[in-house]
Amino acid sequence: MNQTIKELMERKSVRVYEERRIEPEKKKIILQAALQAPTAGNMTLYSIIDVTDQKLKDKLSETCDNQPFLAKAPLVLVFAADCQRWYDLFCSHEEEVRRPGMGDLLLAVDDTLIAAQNAVTAAQSMGIGSCYIGDIMENYEIHKELLGLPRYAVPAAMVVFGYPTRQQKERNKPKRLNPEAVVFENSYRRLSPVEFEEELNKSQGREENFSAWVKAFCKRKWNSDFSVEMSRSVKAMTEAWEKED
Amino acid sequence: MNQTIKELMERKSVRVYEERRIEPEKKKIILQAALQAPTAGNMTLYSIIDVTDQKLKDKLSETCDNQPFLAKAPLVLVFAADCQRWYDLFCSHEEEVRRPGMGDLLLAVDDTLIAAQNAVTAAQSMGIGSCYIGDIMENYEIHKELLGLPRYAVPAAMVVFGYPTRQQKERNKPKRLNPEAVVFENSYRRLSPVEFEEELNKSQGREENFSAWVKAFCKRKWNSDFSVEMSRSVKAMTEAWEKED
Repeated sequence: MNQTIKELMERKSVRVYEERRIEPEKKKIILQAALQAPTAGNMTLYSIIDVTDQKLKDKLSETCDNQPFLAKAPLVLVFAADCQRWYDLFCSHEEEVRRPGMGDLLLAVDDTLIAAQNAVTAAQSMGIGSCYIGDIMENYEIHKELLGLPRYAVPAAMVVFGYPTRQQKERNKPKRLNPEAVVFENSYRRLSPVEFEEELNKSQGREENFSAWVKAFCKRKWNSDFSVEMSRSVKAMTEAWEKED
Repeated sequence: MNQTIKELMERKSVRVYEERRIEPEKKKIILQAALQAPTAGNMTLYSIIDVTDQKLKDKLSETCDNQPFLAKAPLVLVFAADCQRWYDLFCSHEEEVRRPGMGDLLLAVDDTLIAAQNAVTAAQSMGIGSCYIGDIMENYEIHKELLGLPRYAVPAAMVVFGYPTRQQKERNKPKRLNPEAVVFENSYRRLSPVEFEEELNKSQGREENFSAWVKAFCKRKWNSDFSVEMSRSVKAMTEAWEKED
């Protein structure tokens, strides 16, 4: 296993940081690695907001499901799926330009996360930890205002970075699913709940009372307030994206 | 610059492959690197369809905007955003389960592309080239049928892999935008078309007739048939996702 693959395998989320800034030259490399990522049609369908203002970090730590740790991260990047730049350019040179649609939105989200993951991988290779904050997709109206986003640039992910504390370095990475539960040959295989239970047991260890565990997990991750809000917010965002003027 | 970052910087799309299979142990590592990627709530909100059937590759090379090269790729992976597995499990243990919404879809697309990019990076580190095929988001109804996808698992990306030919290794990587056009501090900055033109000139060289270039690019990448189809298809997909029974 080469060094790159070792880093990909070992990377885990880091939510507690040393009180140590990220060196400007390392931050520059993290951003360059993002910008060098694959991008559809070489269009760079995203923008990155580098959040350096402590008041804005504090505010985002509230609006992103109240997670105070992210206000303490030395590097906070919001990755926005962005068709605005190209759409504006096209409209200034061409009379009939198709309005951005749902396909453009999803292609831009693809671009955005590909770039974000390059940033994460580059950071990891320099000993810098990171954590994705999907909650940036909540509170669409507030985040649009806070970040000054135009209609065709929308938050798709936030990543916070910092040097991990010793405790974070030593903590175990949560076990992932085995390929048997996720990778299928030529055709999707819909796992029955019993098969999926077996796969969870195999990869993550057996729960004493599986049903109680599922109920609690569903309550925390799916039926939860943040999750309901995320779907409301993304729905509002797509409606604004698609609205006829 | 460490080796990992060097690989991230140098990675470019590869569309012509040597006639050489990808060794099973390397394929396994590519898939494991994908599975070890960050994932929201450790839920692995995606599935990977490993397309080994030549007839299916041939078919996809037609339905994905007629790109014969992808039928020749020794490894073809479709990455589907997938809430089906967890939704089915939740429903089998809990009475009131929220239906997957637009937030779940976008969070799953995030997860999916993060995993896909880990696969790309792992491959690159072993000398294996790759190319994203966003066109898998076209022809939703056909791809759903071809890949046997249920309602809550939808194609978000396809990546094809293979050993690059010498010509591909030697070809120049297309220039990306400079950070000035993409990275903004604390608040989004909407580039005027003239500013964006200047940024394109700086990063990619000056076009003799910029306006003609923009018109041609818009025709090829934005007003084009594949692009119109992608937005139709993704719209149909999101409507199916959201439909009340």
